[in-house]
Amino acid sequence: MSKIHFITGGGGFIGSNLVDKLLDCDQKVVVYDNFSTGRKKFLEQALSNPNFMLLEADLLDLEAITSAMNIPIDTVWHLAANADVRFGLDHPRKDLEQNTIVTHNVLDAMRLNDIKKIVFSSTGSIYGEPLVHPTPEDAPFPVQTSLYGASKLACEALIQAYCEGFGFNGYIFRFVSILGERYTHGHVFDFCRSLLHNPDELRILGDGHQRKSYIYVQDCIDAMLLALDKCHDGVNIFNLGVDSYVEVNDSVNAIAQHLKVSPRLKYSGEKRGWIGDSPFIWLDTGRIQSLGWKPKINILDGVIKTLDWLLLHRYVFGDDHNE
Amino acid sequence: MSKIHFITGGGGFIGSNLVDKLLDCDQKVVVYDNFSTGRKKFLEQALSNPNFMLLEADLLDLEAITSAMNIPIDTVWHLAANADVRFGLDHPRKDLEQNTIVTHNVLDAMRLNDIKKIVFSSTGSIYGEPLVHPTPEDAPFPVQTSLYGASKLACEALIQAYCEGFGFNGYIFRFVSILGERYTHGHVFDFCRSLLHNPDELRILGDGHQRKSYIYVQDCIDAMLLALDKCHDGVNIFNLGVDSYVEVNDSVNAIAQHLKVSPRLKYSGEKRGWIGDSPFIWLDTGRIQSLGWKPKINILDGVIKTLDWLLLHRYVFGDDHNE
Repeated sequence: MSKIHFITGGGGFIGSNLVDKLLDCDQKVVVYDNFSTGRKKFLEQALSNPNFMLLEADLLDLEAITSAMNIPIDTVWHLAANADVRFGLDHPRKDLEQNTIVTHNVLDAMRLNDIKKIVFSSTGSIYGEPLVHPTPEDAPFPVQTSLYGASKLACEALIQAYCEGFGFNGYIFRFVSILGERYTHGHVFDFCRSLLHNPDELRILGDGHQRKSYIYVQDCIDAMLLALDKCHDGVNIFNLGVDSYVEVNDSVNAIAQHLKVSPRLKYSGEKRGWIGDSPFIWLDTGRIQSLGWKPKINILDGVIKTLDWLLLHRYVFGDDHNE
Repeated sequence: MSKIHFITGGGGFIGSNLVDKLLDCDQKVVVYDNFSTGRKKFLEQALSNPNFMLLEADLLDLEAITSAMNIPIDTVWHLAANADVRFGLDHPRKDLEQNTIVTHNVLDAMRLNDIKKIVFSSTGSIYGEPLVHPTPEDAPFPVQTSLYGASKLACEALIQAYCEGFGFNGYIFRFVSILGERYTHGHVFDFCRSLLHNPDELRILGDGHQRKSYIYVQDCIDAMLLALDKCHDGVNIFNLGVDSYVEVNDSVNAIAQHLKVSPRLKYSGEKRGWIGDSPFIWLDTGRIQSLGWKPKINILDGVIKTLDWLLLHRYVFGDDHNE
């Protein structure tokens, strides 16, 4: 019998894509999600699969997560998180609770159930405003610029300490922003919704020259599965991204062209889109590429594919909880 | 009127020494301590000073700390912490609560009271097992090896995010181990107590070759006050230590000689004293030294002075809560 993949946040963007991928490979999958930002609709296909089980519960409930893990789990994919970087300052406790404390709960539930393998979705935001580009995993000790980055760094540190202290195997993936099917959060989402509402004007946070890198969700999942297959250190840390970056303006142009609109562009004008926004994110992915992985979809193709998915699934614009 | 220094953990080792120093300089001092490891006896002198006030309360109580800070505070010295590295794995939630969550409470209480300056006692432990010695502040991005180090890293990250997001000024000091008056925790304490109990045998965790650096508490306080005076960046990070290190064996020899005993030495034998113990801690202190500070007391003199203080204040051995 194949062992179970346990996915927190399995109703979310990355999570639900991973669920489908694992089920396609005849794996057993349990999703634990409170659907605060995830969506049941993303699990429609999974829910009809006998290898799939859904647990609707909250990760702040240590007893619930500990009891949920009392099954033969091989790998915990801890993808649940507050992924909202921009509004962190409006609710300064949210990242602490939804990211740091929740990750501690996941780790301790694993320890109590003698489960040792954890995969964690971290972020390039933990490099703060890096001095080295592209930024490698062993970049100089960073200074945090957002509560989101701070909380993800705290999660990474907890996982590393559990690896050393309790013999866990940790797989930490530091993502750039992700594009693809079921994308519900970020600049393509915001620009698409805004242009559908008003094609004549587009407000852009920052000066448009922020340089960002994006990876496609299927490329991201392929990279994680490869690393799990090939690497077996206590702590395994990988940047995930592509070999290039674009300016926000490049993305805006591609989106406008694809939607066949010519909006007036209104910039807020600062170098950073918001406090804690890094004006230049570009990660060195030499480590994951040395395992034989390469991204298949480049940034602007990813933007267009994401846009096409959004246009076909406009229901995702209808619910404020994903903004 | 001089503004107030607010010191969490002011009843502890570093805290109570800082209290006396600030009161000597005619500053006003408020201590907030739950005396879980601090001691009222350390504040005996302060308690008779009209510039001093003691608040006995818990930092996990966000309401209490927020209300306590509703006074004209200039600087918050956040020194309260679970400082027990060795037994972290016995109670994996303690560092999360006593360090990470408590630090968030302190920061948010400051925000709510419009207080902007925080000094934080971090640790060389956040470098994990560094690859570079002496280790500079911008060492390669470390991997955590203890829950203690992980929690202190989380605190640093939170402080940095508050500096960026809310305009705080943060002073983060990464200490090596500290020696001096009111020292109640660490190898000199353990060895002294053991040899007073049985001078014929001494059990040593590890192989005795662990290399460690120690700073004297008065040197440490001088360095912090200098940095506060001279540096005014958003985030100010300094290693605090001395230019050298000793082996555990060197310290054992100095202690035995000073106590005039010749114990059989029984080593547990591993390279590390315990899981998460770094076998080589030596910090690069060029940054703080460039401000004009130099440590006045070397390691082995510090060990002997600490030993002398312990011998004159044996009551500190009497209470398990400081072990």
